[in-house]
Amino acid sequence: MSNTSITIKMPAWLENFYQQAYVLDGSIESKMDFTIKIAAQNIKEGGGPFAATIFEKNSTNLISIGINLVTKSHLSIAHAEIIAICAAQRKFSNHNLSKVCAEGVELFSTTEPCAMCTGAIPWSGIKWLVYGATKQDASEIGFDEGAKPKNWIQEYEKRGIEVVREVNRESARKVLLEYHKNKGIMY
Amino acid sequence: MSNTSITIKMPAWLENFYQQAYVLDGSIESKMDFTIKIAAQNIKEGGGPFAATIFEKNSTNLISIGINLVTKSHLSIAHAEIIAICAAQRKFSNHNLSKVCAEGVELFSTTEPCAMCTGAIPWSGIKWLVYGATKQDASEIGFDEGAKPKNWIQEYEKRGIEVVREVNRESARKVLLEYHKNKGIMY
Repeated sequence: MSNTSITIKMPAWLENFYQQAYVLDGSIESKMDFTIKIAAQNIKEGGGPFAATIFEKNSTNLISIGINLVTKSHLSIAHAEIIAICAAQRKFSNHNLSKVCAEGVELFSTTEPCAMCTGAIPWSGIKWLVYGATKQDASEIGFDEGAKPKNWIQEYEKRGIEVVREVNRESARKVLLEYHKNKGIMY
Repeated sequence: MSNTSITIKMPAWLENFYQQAYVLDGSIESKMDFTIKIAAQNIKEGGGPFAATIFEKNSTNLISIGINLVTKSHLSIAHAEIIAICAAQRKFSNHNLSKVCAEGVELFSTTEPCAMCTGAIPWSGIKWLVYGATKQDASEIGFDEGAKPKNWIQEYEKRGIEVVREVNRESARKVLLEYHKNKGIMY
């Protein structure tokens, strides 16, 4: 017997964040702060300490939100970045996000993407990646980010993808530590 | 407005392959041959030239089939390996496939996995990867496999994942060339 479809359900509480996005001032710090608040809420809701958002570049237009749903969805691919990418692509019915807004789109991730997500971003059409906490911050609390090419940022540059590192890092790291303190599930 | 769920629909024709799997003799060549036939059929059905399957190790027990659904699903992550992993994890309601069968599971991919799929496999609990055509064969017809760590096979070994390379490579490569000849969409 085969599966005829795979469905990933988004939690209802995300809707509040979709409604709140209009208060952002459009700076990358403010968008990252917003994304970190979603990660903190995801822990309270019983999920992992990671969140991601996709915004139209140079705009407060929120396109999608992703949270880590690995344990809830029973899918190891359900990292925040992957969920945000899928939600955005479905919104536009287009697998290439470089074609959906005049200015392009930017991905905010509360933590440096793992090996899988680092590989997924170039296929998505995203041209800007902004992250908060580092790979080291994640591994400090026991999360394995996997084997990435050492020069992944240069590889991104070759493909026209710009990386902005460690935006609001301390505040993103605090969410990881909070999760660890509360003995969140490691997966 | 947010998406409340993301659904990936499997095509109905896959069911024939789920029914046919019992004829396999259990060798890795026979499982790869079966997987290559699915990739060939996916082209006929208007999809990309890639397929993947997950089998119980040392068994003819087919757990899941994945095909490339990038253009049909509007999702850049919908590579054959990702679809096969998701379908298998949903079958067992478990994001860790190392826990679902006594002998573990093995992933067959008609082509060497791209950077994203290479990053995704270690998170899935799969302990054996068998592939057919190489990264070079895919790039020969214009598919970009992305930046992977040079030593990815050793990195896999460190995690207890064994890689069997170039099984039925010529026959897997033929499917890629066929797709190219018929001017299949590049994505």
